[in-house]
Amino acid sequence: LKGRRILVTAGPTREYLDPVRFLTNASSGQMGYALARAARRAGAVVTLISGPVHLTPPSGVRMVSVVSAMDMLHAVLKQAFLSDIFIGAAAVADWRPAVRLPQKIKKKSIRGRQSVSIKMLQNPDILQEISRRRTRGKPWTVGFALETENLLRNARRKLQDKELDMIVANPHTVIDRPHAEAYFLFPGEQPVRIRPRTKDSMAAEILSAAARRYL
Amino acid sequence: LKGRRILVTAGPTREYLDPVRFLTNASSGQMGYALARAARRAGAVVTLISGPVHLTPPSGVRMVSVVSAMDMLHAVLKQAFLSDIFIGAAAVADWRPAVRLPQKIKKKSIRGRQSVSIKMLQNPDILQEISRRRTRGKPWTVGFALETENLLRNARRKLQDKELDMIVANPHTVIDRPHAEAYFLFPGEQPVRIRPRTKDSMAAEILSAAARRYL
Repeated sequence: LKGRRILVTAGPTREYLDPVRFLTNASSGQMGYALARAARRAGAVVTLISGPVHLTPPSGVRMVSVVSAMDMLHAVLKQAFLSDIFIGAAAVADWRPAVRLPQKIKKKSIRGRQSVSIKMLQNPDILQEISRRRTRGKPWTVGFALETENLLRNARRKLQDKELDMIVANPHTVIDRPHAEAYFLFPGEQPVRIRPRTKDSMAAEILSAAARRYL
Repeated sequence: LKGRRILVTAGPTREYLDPVRFLTNASSGQMGYALARAARRAGAVVTLISGPVHLTPPSGVRMVSVVSAMDMLHAVLKQAFLSDIFIGAAAVADWRPAVRLPQKIKKKSIRGRQSVSIKMLQNPDILQEISRRRTRGKPWTVGFALETENLLRNARRKLQDKELDMIVANPHTVIDRPHAEAYFLFPGEQPVRIRPRTKDSMAAEILSAAARRYL
């Protein structure tokens, strides 16, 4: 991958309701950071766009820190079409609150109310935004599918709907864990099972599968 | 504080909507962990009830790990009335989703909908539950007020409404930061300003203020 430009997203996003509360998920960012390190090691020019995580930025990698899904989309749009491969490993929130309050919501302002409703708007799908806007198949685009049921069927549908070149299907039990297990899916090919291994080893497998098909 | 029983809560809580998504805040747990360490160092018998954080459990401290506000309430109820001092340093979520879905919400199930509403129920106030149920002023109860506006006025109201013995009022800029600054408020006393310092040093100040009044 020497000299190739690789863009990776990692971590969760945070969708703030007010200055302190937000909707998120437990993504640790480990997979995306492992991919960025492995790509750098393979000689690529790497940009890593990361949501809030507790990880050390990989050396030799250009880091862009973001908070929300909309921030991440804007950062990705700036880089994606200059990249050879785009790997969307971030666990981007599908929804954001319709309103972000400028001050912390106080209980007293809703005293006596036992319930409230929060209106949520759908976030754009970053991978789909990129795959649909690209020309001549650039960047080659890799997504992840984290599923709680019907892993392969749901992953295959995402591969098609989002017009991706590859999808890594994970059972949801891998979130916030050190190990990884996965199936790799490509358009028009049978799924390839990748046996449980460390996230570093999984990252190397993903990159070599991508490189074989892209280069 | 030799031999005294001190119960501390720390960290955020997570309020799950489905197996992967949750509402939370950026509390690092540092203040609560610093309090537990300082109390242990002062010879107390310490229990630390903690939401999900990235911190090493203090040695010599009994740890109870919880996820949601309801989990934390139940863990606190088991310990609080056996404790001399209860310090509620956790940033407990005020609200939880009315429904927790057993499977990850799929975008396709809400295809075409640009917005959804999430019904949230009010969580119990853990400090207030303890202060109102206690007999003979045991445990002596310390709360925190993290405010984005009208710091002292809002903190004074919380001290009174929740019937606490002490409240530590922080501007919300301290969340997820290594340093702390605060006012200490007690019923019928003027606020005491504590100048900016490390969270370890702030923890020692809080404990000595509590010990002077409780013992």
